[in-house]
Amino acid sequence: MDWHHVLAGRTQRLKASEIRELLKLLDRPDIISFAGGIPDARLFPEDAFRAAAGEALASGAASVALQYSVSEGYRPLREWIALQMDKIGVPCTAENILITSGSQQALDYLGKLFLSPGDTALVGWPTYLGALGAFNAYEPVYDQLAVGGNQGADDYRARAEAAGGQVKFAYLSADFANPTGETVDLQGREALLDLARDLDIPVIEDAAYQALRYDGDPVPPILALDIARTGDIEKTRTLYCGSFSKTLAPGLRVGWVCGAKEVIGRLVLMKQAADLHSATFNQIVTERVAQRCFEEHVAKIHAAYKARRDAMLAALARHMPEGVTWTRPEGGMFVWVTPPKGMDGAALLARAIETERIAFVPGRAFFADGSNGNTLRLSFSCADVEAIEEGMMRLGRLIARERGAVAA
Amino acid sequence: MDWHHVLAGRTQRLKASEIRELLKLLDRPDIISFAGGIPDARLFPEDAFRAAAGEALASGAASVALQYSVSEGYRPLREWIALQMDKIGVPCTAENILITSGSQQALDYLGKLFLSPGDTALVGWPTYLGALGAFNAYEPVYDQLAVGGNQGADDYRARAEAAGGQVKFAYLSADFANPTGETVDLQGREALLDLARDLDIPVIEDAAYQALRYDGDPVPPILALDIARTGDIEKTRTLYCGSFSKTLAPGLRVGWVCGAKEVIGRLVLMKQAADLHSATFNQIVTERVAQRCFEEHVAKIHAAYKARRDAMLAALARHMPEGVTWTRPEGGMFVWVTPPKGMDGAALLARAIETERIAFVPGRAFFADGSNGNTLRLSFSCADVEAIEEGMMRLGRLIARERGAVAA
Repeated sequence: MDWHHVLAGRTQRLKASEIRELLKLLDRPDIISFAGGIPDARLFPEDAFRAAAGEALASGAASVALQYSVSEGYRPLREWIALQMDKIGVPCTAENILITSGSQQALDYLGKLFLSPGDTALVGWPTYLGALGAFNAYEPVYDQLAVGGNQGADDYRARAEAAGGQVKFAYLSADFANPTGETVDLQGREALLDLARDLDIPVIEDAAYQALRYDGDPVPPILALDIARTGDIEKTRTLYCGSFSKTLAPGLRVGWVCGAKEVIGRLVLMKQAADLHSATFNQIVTERVAQRCFEEHVAKIHAAYKARRDAMLAALARHMPEGVTWTRPEGGMFVWVTPPKGMDGAALLARAIETERIAFVPGRAFFADGSNGNTLRLSFSCADVEAIEEGMMRLGRLIARERGAVAA
Repeated sequence: MDWHHVLAGRTQRLKASEIRELLKLLDRPDIISFAGGIPDARLFPEDAFRAAAGEALASGAASVALQYSVSEGYRPLREWIALQMDKIGVPCTAENILITSGSQQALDYLGKLFLSPGDTALVGWPTYLGALGAFNAYEPVYDQLAVGGNQGADDYRARAEAAGGQVKFAYLSADFANPTGETVDLQGREALLDLARDLDIPVIEDAAYQALRYDGDPVPPILALDIARTGDIEKTRTLYCGSFSKTLAPGLRVGWVCGAKEVIGRLVLMKQAADLHSATFNQIVTERVAQRCFEEHVAKIHAAYKARRDAMLAALARHMPEGVTWTRPEGGMFVWVTPPKGMDGAALLARAIETERIAFVPGRAFFADGSNGNTLRLSFSCADVEAIEEGMMRLGRLIARERGAVAA
């Protein structure tokens, strides 16, 4: 049969994520990869997961862990998360939390909740490409969110109307963002809330990396600043998307959205219709592991990732030729590199794999308009310190050679 | 903030599923409930799950089970499913299978793949209300799928065009359907494939209950009949949605879609954008449990559910007053009851809870047009034989009393 005539319009924007496709290709042992932005599996709290799974499946408990459960999520986990949110300046209750299958699903649901075709989503240039992938299904146009810039609400509104819709939300990852590793400072966050207030739109705060701060002072979450303004989470406009993927482990797919009950209630209905609920067992196990070792485990991975971040920044300083710039993240998993002008990240990757046996993610996919190919994302989360040194030496050598070729 | 101005149009159709809401209310020990269409947790293969979870989280294995994995799903599970599909007349490979988070998610993704607002979905009157919930997010209109009826493709096409879209698919559960318990015979399935061919649309075959046949001869899956016509799964129009929820356990949320690679490939991209992948651990554990005990376990639950179905049919014959009719399912979990004319299922439920301490699901929610409130769904999957006898006695007493009240 010819499928094209039955496909919905939204499927025209379905395409493979470069990152996910890369994950498949770059798992070869002879390549030093800085491509996948994934946690180091050697750091997972395996003992805690083993113990928790044993308890969840013990006689008398298993019939609950293996059964259907409510769409909003396992209450003890929602209560644990609410306590955790309180620690970072977000007093709330379990009713403000929906459990999702990873924070990726939260992005999908928020796109589904807000976006009609032609509506505008404000996103960073660059931004997390998985957010663009999730939102694309709802056929928005994108406009550049210039945090701390002096663009006014009226300009955004006018462009959105010209595009045939409304501005529906601003999305950003404020801490150690994927892909840049950069953090939005307090002033930037307040300016964003001002803009959102002027446009009367929600802010989607992607906090996937927020718990991974290795140094510097924490900046309050946007949701905390929103509560400080309004006095009550029920009056806020910020929807905070959290995840256990970067702190405990991603393979159980447990994340959450925290926000005003009015929105959480709608998201619960959406989840009920879309997949009934996140896996019961996974939520029970995650709650037990979190209770058992969240703080200590996060401290442990901080130490490991910090050493790798330090190694990468030191190696970049040692090996990059003139004309290369990069970010200095205070946490997370990524360094964002800008090679000399005119050098394309994708072309560089092809050469890197071929001649230097190293890999990274070309930057273009992170730009909603496909601009700025002159960038690349390095992840330091999975490489050992020696491999980081060797890899940055090779990258520096490659860029120096390519620059020579461009000049010649 | 006022959320209404930022909500997408599709959210107008968000509403609580009566069944899911009922599940919350009717878990009281003093009520005999025939409401929840869920498997009996006492029958879960707990030992097999415990052993499989232990293996998946063993040292050396846990780092895989807890890590990200590919969007299409865990290959050994997809291979096991492909072998299983072959046994029911569907020769295929792992490339024809996408793992989903329960078959509910498959319905959501198929709605997302095919439906633009105003398009028509053909569904049974009644049909699984969770399918309506999933599809509603994509703003279709519904037309009544009359299996084996003599409505022609032209009529469907004309009505769809009048509604402002196209007919995009026919959805049905062909075996022991939720809510009726009825099975579509071979002739009906062939007629459906004829209609789908004439309209050049896909068929979504919801096979959630297909493995639960207690007596009578199996009817080939629609996908098997489609392959028999076309000679090759790649040329078929049927998308088969399978689930482990009714055979092993629902709490791990593992289901699948089987169909032509061209469609599976698009669904993989959709899943990548929506939630990256189903939980790695859950897929590994499910594959191990399936390898270990699928056939024996299904035989065990057949015996238990058959006894309950037999008890319910016998008790209905004993206790229902004149004017009540019901279906005689050869499998699954449901009997569909039509009380005497003029008696509304929802009103009857209110009285049933109040005066007889029994519960069931009123039938109206299963009709896309909200018609036919003069029906109710009984589930026999979770009640013991004695409770079934007592419950049907109370239901018969209630209906007789209500009929008297109506007559008076």
